[in-house]
Amino acid sequence: MSDSIINITKKKTLNLDCGAKLQKCEVAYKTYGKLNKKKTNAILVCHALTGDQYCSGMHPLKKKRGWWYNVIGPDKAVDTKEFFVICSNVIGGCQGSTGPSSINPETNQRYDLTFPVITIADMVNAQVRLIDALGIEKLFAVIGGSMGGMQALQWGANFPERTNAIIPIATSYRHSAQNIAFHEIGRQAIMSDPNWYKGKYISKKNNPRRGLSVARMIAHITYLSESALQRKFGRNLQQRDSLSYEFDVDFQIESYLKHQGFSFVERFDANSYLYITKAMDYFDLSNKKGGLFDLFKNNKLKFCFFSFSSDWLFPTMETKTIIKSLNSCGANVSFVEIETDKGHDAFLLNEPEFHNILNGFVNGLKKKVEI
Amino acid sequence: MSDSIINITKKKTLNLDCGAKLQKCEVAYKTYGKLNKKKTNAILVCHALTGDQYCSGMHPLKKKRGWWYNVIGPDKAVDTKEFFVICSNVIGGCQGSTGPSSINPETNQRYDLTFPVITIADMVNAQVRLIDALGIEKLFAVIGGSMGGMQALQWGANFPERTNAIIPIATSYRHSAQNIAFHEIGRQAIMSDPNWYKGKYISKKNNPRRGLSVARMIAHITYLSESALQRKFGRNLQQRDSLSYEFDVDFQIESYLKHQGFSFVERFDANSYLYITKAMDYFDLSNKKGGLFDLFKNNKLKFCFFSFSSDWLFPTMETKTIIKSLNSCGANVSFVEIETDKGHDAFLLNEPEFHNILNGFVNGLKKKVEI
Repeated sequence: MSDSIINITKKKTLNLDCGAKLQKCEVAYKTYGKLNKKKTNAILVCHALTGDQYCSGMHPLKKKRGWWYNVIGPDKAVDTKEFFVICSNVIGGCQGSTGPSSINPETNQRYDLTFPVITIADMVNAQVRLIDALGIEKLFAVIGGSMGGMQALQWGANFPERTNAIIPIATSYRHSAQNIAFHEIGRQAIMSDPNWYKGKYISKKNNPRRGLSVARMIAHITYLSESALQRKFGRNLQQRDSLSYEFDVDFQIESYLKHQGFSFVERFDANSYLYITKAMDYFDLSNKKGGLFDLFKNNKLKFCFFSFSSDWLFPTMETKTIIKSLNSCGANVSFVEIETDKGHDAFLLNEPEFHNILNGFVNGLKKKVEI
Repeated sequence: MSDSIINITKKKTLNLDCGAKLQKCEVAYKTYGKLNKKKTNAILVCHALTGDQYCSGMHPLKKKRGWWYNVIGPDKAVDTKEFFVICSNVIGGCQGSTGPSSINPETNQRYDLTFPVITIADMVNAQVRLIDALGIEKLFAVIGGSMGGMQALQWGANFPERTNAIIPIATSYRHSAQNIAFHEIGRQAIMSDPNWYKGKYISKKNNPRRGLSVARMIAHITYLSESALQRKFGRNLQQRDSLSYEFDVDFQIESYLKHQGFSFVERFDANSYLYITKAMDYFDLSNKKGGLFDLFKNNKLKFCFFSFSSDWLFPTMETKTIIKSLNSCGANVSFVEIETDKGHDAFLLNEPEFHNILNGFVNGLKKKVEI
């Protein structure tokens, strides 16, 4: 297990989709397990909007288990006794990789909102540099859920020769109007907070806590299903026997959401939230001439998609659309919809069926790809 | 067509569920059509969260058609050539009825947050006083969508002898955990705005515009369906040919939502938004001993429920739950689910099937109830 930061712009600048170039870009990453001699057992794990490089083991700051401990670790679906797992913080993030809170080497000032708007493809380009630096020619697989799944798909589209398989989970080939809408409201909540100071809150020794908290609360609802909320909270009152008839907390769901909002502020940077949501909103693999068909038509990759039946943020229908395109261009595609009432969050939770099938896919791939 | 305000506390105070008493409570209302001599042709229309008494004709302030012009008017499903339609602004509201922005007669100060927290039942009690004042013993029907449907159900539960029928549309017998969650976030957005001044923004000559705008944007997404958003906006860019790579508006959906937020602020009071959302969150007809069954078991009313297939705020399943209870206690219940992709908003929009069936139900009732 290693915990490192690498400068991926030692040899050349990182050219971004927006036209800007990062003269200095660092990527914070963590690895689990051992890289074998042939360097064929590396799996890249891509994190979601608010994730980080700590996908397994213990998180050094949060003192909690890594965000995907259900999936990655010794004897887990992705077995770190067998595989070398690499997970890096996306650029634009706030867990060590270069992002809006980094210092711009050209000005020696913090970037704040002068940091260029990045895309999912930019994040992936940074990951490719990292893989290059680790001396890995071809990954065993790229795997990720939600925004991590977008990155996996982008790997499949742009670097099909650099991995044997991609495993996109609870994701889509493009962000929907509804999802853009939820993100935009979150951004508005942050930018409406007077403590945001047009993005310059760090130098003002401030933090748009309330705005970021509201943004997180909005997003958090979309991660759960209606039935899971009803099952977990229903209309249960929070530590009281009757309604308060005040604007304080009455219901458990209110208390839970407030807690989600307030605790998020402790661990996440508001400007990074703006940049990463924007990158997701910009994501659309189908917008080039020829669409998904042309993008994947000569692709030799093995794809394994997962969706979750009660996920309304990235509903199964979205996955089916890309599955159709991939099948129609003869790609090697597997697809599983997991029945669950846990909503989008299911990809992070204890879902044995998901884990068993994922493990089966990885094991099946081992028979074809010698490691 | 008349446009009036009535003091409903001339004879006695209005006792609220929270225990408080309103010494002076006014109700602003509007009527359409003519009350017949026997006073048997009156239909009470109940408005939703952000609605008002202007359900038909022209809105005097907005200079737009009333919010339910698709349903109510001459030769409409509810025909004002035949029926006397009454629509009143709910108490707690901001269109003339007593609410948080009214003056407390005991202190001669504006209530602001000292206004008591009200419930759907309180709103209905105020409506009963209005009906009494108009000399109407028994309504032909009570009809309403969304929060208006909650009021209709409350009439059915508390005053079954005062109406022949109730027509709850796109509503539920209790507010769900998810809906409470969305409302709570909206309230947090308002109360986080420093211009809210703990509710005293009017005397500060201010307005929590940004917070209220974010609250409206959140709510607005829940009124639409994912497929309607996709159909109307998709990923279309707003007056540009390519992505901006800035935090300005890129997509039409962003521009649309911002417009919804900003224009709402012009017509609605932030504190009223707090009070009315709280009233909806408190609504639960099933929380008494014996539940819905006991509540409706000897009820002679005729019920006609409508739901809309793509409404995810008040999904059909919620209506089916109350339908089951009503059927199991032998109530006279009709139920129609309208197929549409327009989401919750469908109840306000041009939905001919809904309007035809509603008109059929009203006409059928005329055969049983002499008017």
